Amino acid sequence: MRFNFKIIGSLLGILLIINGVFMLLCLPVSLFYQEGGVFPLIMSGLTSAGVGGCLWWSTRKRLNDTLSKRDGYLIVTMGWLGMSLAGTLPYIFSGAIPNFTNAFFETISGFTTTGASILNDIESVPKGILFWRSLTQWMGGMGIIVLAVAILPLLGIGGMQLFVAEAPGLRPDKLQPRITETAKRLWIIYVGLTLAEFVLLLLGGMSVYDAMNHSLTTMATGGFSTKQNSIAHYNNPYIHYVIILFMFIAGTNFTLTYFGFKGNFRKIWANEEFRVYLIGVVSMGIIVSLGLFASSDGDFEESFRNAMFQVVSIITTTGFISADFTTWTPALTILFFMFMFIGASAGSTAGGVKIVRHLLLLKNGVLELKRQIHPAAIIPVRLNEKAVSQEITSNVLAFIMIYLTIFVISTCVMGLIGVDFETALGSVATSLGNIGPGLGSVGPAHTFAHIPTTGKWFLSFLMLLGRLELFTVLILITPYFWMRN
Amino acid sequence: MRFNFKIIGSLLGILLIINGVFMLLCLPVSLFYQEGGVFPLIMSGLTSAGVGGCLWWSTRKRLNDTLSKRDGYLIVTMGWLGMSLAGTLPYIFSGAIPNFTNAFFETISGFTTTGASILNDIESVPKGILFWRSLTQWMGGMGIIVLAVAILPLLGIGGMQLFVAEAPGLRPDKLQPRITETAKRLWIIYVGLTLAEFVLLLLGGMSVYDAMNHSLTTMATGGFSTKQNSIAHYNNPYIHYVIILFMFIAGTNFTLTYFGFKGNFRKIWANEEFRVYLIGVVSMGIIVSLGLFASSDGDFEESFRNAMFQVVSIITTTGFISADFTTWTPALTILFFMFMFIGASAGSTAGGVKIVRHLLLLKNGVLELKRQIHPAAIIPVRLNEKAVSQEITSNVLAFIMIYLTIFVISTCVMGLIGVDFETALGSVATSLGNIGPGLGSVGPAHTFAHIPTTGKWFLSFLMLLGRLELFTVLILITPYFWMRN
Repeated sequence: MRFNFKIIGSLLGILLIINGVFMLLCLPVSLFYQEGGVFPLIMSGLTSAGVGGCLWWSTRKRLNDTLSKRDGYLIVTMGWLGMSLAGTLPYIFSGAIPNFTNAFFETISGFTTTGASILNDIESVPKGILFWRSLTQWMGGMGIIVLAVAILPLLGIGGMQLFVAEAPGLRPDKLQPRITETAKRLWIIYVGLTLAEFVLLLLGGMSVYDAMNHSLTTMATGGFSTKQNSIAHYNNPYIHYVIILFMFIAGTNFTLTYFGFKGNFRKIWANEEFRVYLIGVVSMGIIVSLGLFASSDGDFEESFRNAMFQVVSIITTTGFISADFTTWTPALTILFFMFMFIGASAGSTAGGVKIVRHLLLLKNGVLELKRQIHPAAIIPVRLNEKAVSQEITSNVLAFIMIYLTIFVISTCVMGLIGVDFETALGSVATSLGNIGPGLGSVGPAHTFAHIPTTGKWFLSFLMLLGRLELFTVLILITPYFWMRN
Repeated sequence: MRFNFKIIGSLLGILLIINGVFMLLCLPVSLFYQEGGVFPLIMSGLTSAGVGGCLWWSTRKRLNDTLSKRDGYLIVTMGWLGMSLAGTLPYIFSGAIPNFTNAFFETISGFTTTGASILNDIESVPKGILFWRSLTQWMGGMGIIVLAVAILPLLGIGGMQLFVAEAPGLRPDKLQPRITETAKRLWIIYVGLTLAEFVLLLLGGMSVYDAMNHSLTTMATGGFSTKQNSIAHYNNPYIHYVIILFMFIAGTNFTLTYFGFKGNFRKIWANEEFRVYLIGVVSMGIIVSLGLFASSDGDFEESFRNAMFQVVSIITTTGFISADFTTWTPALTILFFMFMFIGASAGSTAGGVKIVRHLLLLKNGVLELKRQIHPAAIIPVRLNEKAVSQEITSNVLAFIMIYLTIFVISTCVMGLIGVDFETALGSVATSLGNIGPGLGSVGPAHTFAHIPTTGKWFLSFLMLLGRLELFTVLILITPYFWMRN
C-alpha cells in the first residue's frame, strides 16, 4: 500500500476528538447565559468525539509509524476538511445556521481563520454557539502554528523551510517528536498572549464574554466578532489600540515572539521580514491616516486610529472592522484592495502571500536588472545576510505566480457565478488571503449571505487553498502525487 | 568616456530624419483632401528632419563604432522618447491638438502602438493629420520588429533571446549587419501584409483613405481608427472578419510568418507559443460568443463575430472596437480585463506580457509541484522540446512579477490622481499592455481626454515602459547602469 491510511485515520481521529472536546468546552457558556444551545453542543461534541474515537480506536496501533511526505500532504488537507465538516454540527443542531452550505462556509471560514461570515444578525445567535464560532478560529490558529513552524518546512512548501528554519528546538529530521516540542513552546506563547489580551480588554470595560471571544479571534488573526458591527461597536479608543497591538503581534513570526519573551530583542530586529513588516505597517498607516484625515471631517486622532486599525487588520489578515474603508476615497479603496495581497509574517497565524515572499521577489527583481548588466556574474538573493538558493527563489516566485493565477481565474469564476466586478475581485482576494471583509457587496458593511450557493462552496475552497499555502492542496490534484515511483 | 554619446546622437539623428520624411509623406493626403494641415506638415517635417540632420552631421563620423549593451539601452529609450516628442509637431502646428500634454499622449500612444486616444471628435481632424497619426503606429510597429527580433535578444531582455532565437539569419554576435539583414526581411513581410490588408479592405467597400489608415494601424497592433466609433462604424461582416484575420497575423511571431511565406507550415505548427495562441484565441472567442449570445438578443453570427473581434483585438493588444465589451455582462468584463494581461506572441508587434512568458510560467508552476514530490530530481522547464535554463526561467518570472508590481503600484497612483477604481485598473492595464481601450470611464465607448494632466503623463510613461519590455527602461534608473565597472 502506498499511503499509510492507518496513521492518517488515526491522526484524523485524534483531531475529531479534540474538536468534540472543544465543543463541550462551550457548554459552560451556554449554561451560564441560558440562551439555548446546550443540547446541540452536547450532541455535536459527542458525535465528533465519538466518530473520532472510533477512527482512532480502529487504527491506533499504527500511530508510531513514521510518516512519508505524501502522507503529510494528505493529512493536512483532510484534517482541515474533516474539522470543518464536524464543526458545522453545533450550527446545524442548534438551528443557528440551518443551511448546510452556510454552516460549512462559516465553519471553514473559522478554521482557516478567515472571518468571512454569512450571519446577518450576530447578536441573535446563542452565546454558546458564538463561542464555538470564536473557538474554531482559535483552534485554526493553533493548527497554523504547527503547520507553519513544523510541518510545511519539512514538506518544503513555498520556501517555508527558509523562513522559519530558526524555530527554537526545531531540526528538520523526524516529524513526530519535534512537532510536539516546538508546538508546545509556541502554544504557550499563543495561550499567554490570548490571556494577556483578554485581561487588557477587560480593563477597557469590555464584558468578560466579549473580551474572551475577541481575544480568541485576534490571536488567530481570524476576525470573527460577537457584534454585527465588529469593533466599530466599541466607541472606545483604548480598546481599538489594544486590538491593533495584538493583531500586530499575531501577525509576527511566532518564533520571533518567542525570542522576545526570552528578552532577545536584537534577534528580532535582525530579522529582515520583521523590519519590513513594522516599518511597512507604520508608514502605510500614516499614509492612510493622512488620506483619511484630508477627506473626512473627523479629528486627527480618530483618522489615525481608524487608518491604523484597518491597515493592521487587513495586512495581518484579521479582518476586524473599526470603520468601513470602502467608503473612504476611491484611492484608499484601491490601496486596501492591494493590501489584501500582502499578508503578514511567515510563521504567524496570518494568511496571504506573506511579507518575506514579497521581499524575496522584490530583491530578485532588482537583482535581475543587475544581472542584465553583468550577465556573467552569479548574483544570489540575500535574506537575513544569507544567500538564498536558486531553488528556493524559484519556488517562492512560483508560489506567488500560482497565487495570482488562482486569483485571476477565480475572479472570472465568481463573475460567471453572477456577482459584480468589485465583489468578484474582493471576495476572491479576501478568501484566498484569509482576511474576512472584501469589496463591493461583500465589503466591511456587508456579509457573504447573499452569495449564490456555488459561490459559497467555491470561496470555501479558496479559503482552504490559501490557508494551506496552495501547494499542500494543489499537489493532491497533480498526477505526480498519485504516481507510484 | 563611458557612453558613446556620439553614436547615440548619430542614431537619434537618423531616427528624427526618418520621422521628418514620414511627416512629409502625409503631404499628398493633405493636398488631396484640402482640409488644411499642409503647412503644419511641411513645418513639422522640416523641423524634425532638420534637427535630426544637424545631430547626425555633427556625430556621423562615429557611426561605424561598435555599440556596447549600455549604449543599446540608452538608444532604445531615447529613440522612442525622441520620436514621440518630435511626433507632436503636426498636432500642435495644425492646432488639431493644441495642448502639449494631449499631443504627447496621442503621439506616444501612436509610437508605442497603444492606440489610447484623447480625441473626442476624430472625424473633424484634417485627414492629413490623421494619416500622420496612423503612420506613427505603423512606424512604431516597424521599430518593435527590429527591437524584438534583433536588439532585445542581444540585450538579454526578459527571455527574448530564447523566444526569437530562431529568427532567420540572426546570430547573436555583432549588432550592426545582422539588424539590417533581419529587419529588411521582416519589413518586407510587414509591408506586404499591410498592402494585402489594404486591398482586401478596399474590396469590402472601404474608402481608399480609410483602408490605408486601418491597414497601417492593424499591422502595428495599434488600433487608431479614422472613425470615432472605430470598426463599429462599419456595418459589414466582411470588413470585420478581414480585420480579425490581420490582427491575428500581426500578433504572430514575425519570424514564423516568414516561415509561412516560405511555405514551411510544419515549422509554424511546431512552435508551442503559436499553438497556444491559436487554440487559446479560438476557444476564448467561442466561450465569449456563447456568453454574449446567451445574454443578448442578437443572432449567433453577430455574437460570434463581435466576440471573436474583441477577443483578438484585446489579446493582440490592437484595441480596435467592434462593440463595447464593458456593456456585455459583468463576467465578460472581468474576462476582458484579464485578457489585457495576456499579450500575443513574442516577436510580433503586440505589447503586453506575451503568451510564451505565461506558458513558461505555467509550466514552471506545474513542475514546481512535481519538484515538491521529488526534491532531489532536477526538472527543467521545456519549451519547443528544448530545456530552458534556470537563468531564463528566473528572468521571465522576474519580468512578470515586475509587470504585476508596476500594475499594482500604478493603479494606486491613478487612484491618488483621482480616477475611480475601475478606471484606474483599466487605464493602467491598457497603457502598460499597449492595448488602447480600458474599463470604466476609459472604456471602449470613451476616450482619455478627461484624465488629469499628471495622469496622462503617467500613463504615457507606462506605455513606454510596457512597449520597451520594462527592463530596457527600468535599467536606466538603477545605480548598476551608471556605475563604472
